[in-house]
Amino acid sequence: MNKAQTQSDFFIPRLAVIGVGLIGGSLALALREAGAVGEIVGIGRGLENLQKALDLGIVDRITQDAAEGCRDADVVFLATPVRTLADVAAAIIPSLKPGAILTDGGSVKAQVAQEIEPLLRDDVFLVPGHPIAGTEKSGAEAAFATLYQGRRCILTPTKSTDQEALLFIQRMWATVGSEVVLMDVTKHDRVLAAISHLPHMVAYSLVNAVGSYDRYEENILEYSAGGFRDFTRIASSDPTMWRDIALTNRDALIEMMERFERFFGELKEDVRQGDDGKLFDFFQRSKQMRDEIL
Amino acid sequence: MNKAQTQSDFFIPRLAVIGVGLIGGSLALALREAGAVGEIVGIGRGLENLQKALDLGIVDRITQDAAEGCRDADVVFLATPVRTLADVAAAIIPSLKPGAILTDGGSVKAQVAQEIEPLLRDDVFLVPGHPIAGTEKSGAEAAFATLYQGRRCILTPTKSTDQEALLFIQRMWATVGSEVVLMDVTKHDRVLAAISHLPHMVAYSLVNAVGSYDRYEENILEYSAGGFRDFTRIASSDPTMWRDIALTNRDALIEMMERFERFFGELKEDVRQGDDGKLFDFFQRSKQMRDEIL
Ligand SMILES: NC(=O)c1ccc[n+]([C@@H]2O[C@H](COP(=O)([O-])OP(=O)(O)OC[C@H]3O[C@@H](n4cnc5c(N)ncnc54)[C@H](OP(=O)(O)O)[C@@H]3O)[C@@H](O)[C@H]2O)c1
Ligand SMILES: NC(=O)c1ccc[n+]([C@@H]2O[C@H](COP(=O)([O-])OP(=O)(O)OC[C@H]3O[C@@H](n4cnc5c(N)ncnc54)[C@H](OP(=O)(O)O)[C@@H]3O)[C@@H](O)[C@H]2O)c1
Repeated sequence: MNKAQTQSDFFIPRLAVIGVGLIGGSLALALREAGAVGEIVGIGRGLENLQKALDLGIVDRITQDAAEGCRDADVVFLATPVRTLADVAAAIIPSLKPGAILTDGGSVKAQVAQEIEPLLRDDVFLVPGHPIAGTEKSGAEAAFATLYQGRRCILTPTKSTDQEALLFIQRMWATVGSEVVLMDVTKHDRVLAAISHLPHMVAYSLVNAVGSYDRYEENILEYSAGGFRDFTRIASSDPTMWRDIALTNRDALIEMMERFERFFGELKEDVRQGDDGKLFDFFQRSKQMRDEIL
Repeated sequence: MNKAQTQSDFFIPRLAVIGVGLIGGSLALALREAGAVGEIVGIGRGLENLQKALDLGIVDRITQDAAEGCRDADVVFLATPVRTLADVAAAIIPSLKPGAILTDGGSVKAQVAQEIEPLLRDDVFLVPGHPIAGTEKSGAEAAFATLYQGRRCILTPTKSTDQEALLFIQRMWATVGSEVVLMDVTKHDRVLAAISHLPHMVAYSLVNAVGSYDRYEENILEYSAGGFRDFTRIASSDPTMWRDIALTNRDALIEMMERFERFFGELKEDVRQGDDGKLFDFFQRSKQMRDEIL
């Protein structure tokens, strides 16, 4: 029995991480720290990021050949932008060993499940997942072992999801300190459209609106250290990742964007009309809801 | 020479703070800590908050009678919601001693200056100001001595502002660790509409849109700890304060809200049309601007 196995009774002999960035790299670091993993293979598109991941001790070996890197893996964690997930899955599924579990950390779940499930073999299992944790940073250098501690991880099994594989991935996330929640895939995409995707669209729009005003007016962003900087932190997130999220969760996102527009428009009318009572109520209602979030 | 005066050569023998909340209370604490103030009188509307301010050692004595409390003050700091500032000023100006300096921390400056300047006496000086510092908390309990350290404080003198009084208030803010910036009053209100008032309107609308969706749908806010909670922190700010800001900076705010609506609407159309390139550019532009903010 090796040292790792004495520390945790959950163990993945061989893990492959495709996309060793913030999400993939952090899972690798956390599983290693928990003594819950044997060899970790890092797979990616560019050598530069992979080399960093190797240098930082996030993975044990690296390759740009996804099929080769996954051949002996017990678990493959897909952590590339959501619109690349199906292509990556297609490239590796034929070479996976029987019993391998494929799981992912993609921010949108319906389209991913729809695209990957038809590609599966009978002896390869898919468990779609989404850790509700992150920062605005990306790449291997952004990864850290405690990212998932005390955070939720949503798994969205479908009716074809293997129950043993599901249980195994639940234990994986519990091992890195997350609370696992099972959720219907459509509900996941609507909830995330509301609490994550919409806020990102709002933040990106806010920075563009204020920042470009600046260009031909006074140096507005010069005064924006502090509050504005903190509020708009999420607008520093990776453009590719967010383009992919916006495009794969389009319907739910548009619905939430339109809902936001109605509320914002109503508030603007209350400001324009100088409506004391309505303005107070609007702010008060919002404060109450916000204060209830633990 | 007392101990206080040896610590700092800036000194206010008697300071009156009207509205001993986050902004007023923090200035009192900071000046005291710098040894830059003798007696501090706390003035307010309700006894409960005043009593807390006294218990917390923020002020030396308290009164609900503003005129009485300010009678001997060298400096009066107005820190009540912006739409109350003129009434409060009107109530105290007749009883101020000759040479007294009236200054404020209100978040909107044009209307305040317009309303208070006509009320002034020849021997009482007004210096309009706005510390760019704050939290979403309010009341005396929210005050802390380091709030202004390393932050900017904007003063917006008009052509009738006394130069000596201006210099004195500049030194006051420098004493509590702020970098003082002088700015044209109209520019102040436009800059703040962009970097502070608009973001608050956005955050309040976002929480209302998402939180009320929750009511008849799935328990969305339950999943909103973390990112959403952090992003919407400013929507926990005081409704009275923000109603007053929205109403007194109406024109600049509406202009910025409409500007934001255009950008947000453009983004929504790009999402609807699934326009890869435009979406990437929108996010990329925003990330670049955001990353430039120090
Ligand atoms: N960031 C968050 O807050 C967060 C939270 C939850 C879930 N997620 C999801 O997690 C996934 C990864 O996000 P992240 O934040 O970790 O991004 P990241 O830090 O940019 O990492 C993604 C990695 O994937 C690699 N990659 C990109 N395209 C690839 C391809 N076609 N084939 C192989 N490798 C590729 C990139 O390396 P190269 O540049 O070398 O290709 C990069 O290192 C996304 O699906 C995202 O939606 C993100
Ligand atoms: N919070 C920020 O981030 C921030 C930043 C910069 C500037 N400001 C400005 O600073 C001022 C104060 O804001 P704050 O955050 O310190 O608010 P706060 O914590 O709520 O304090 C305001 C205080 O004023 C008192 N008050 C309210 N109406 C009054 C009246 N008519 N007469 C006398 N006292 C009255 C309140 O006490 P009672 O309830 O007992 O009346 C309260 O303690 C506002 O003008 C605001 O725009 C705020």
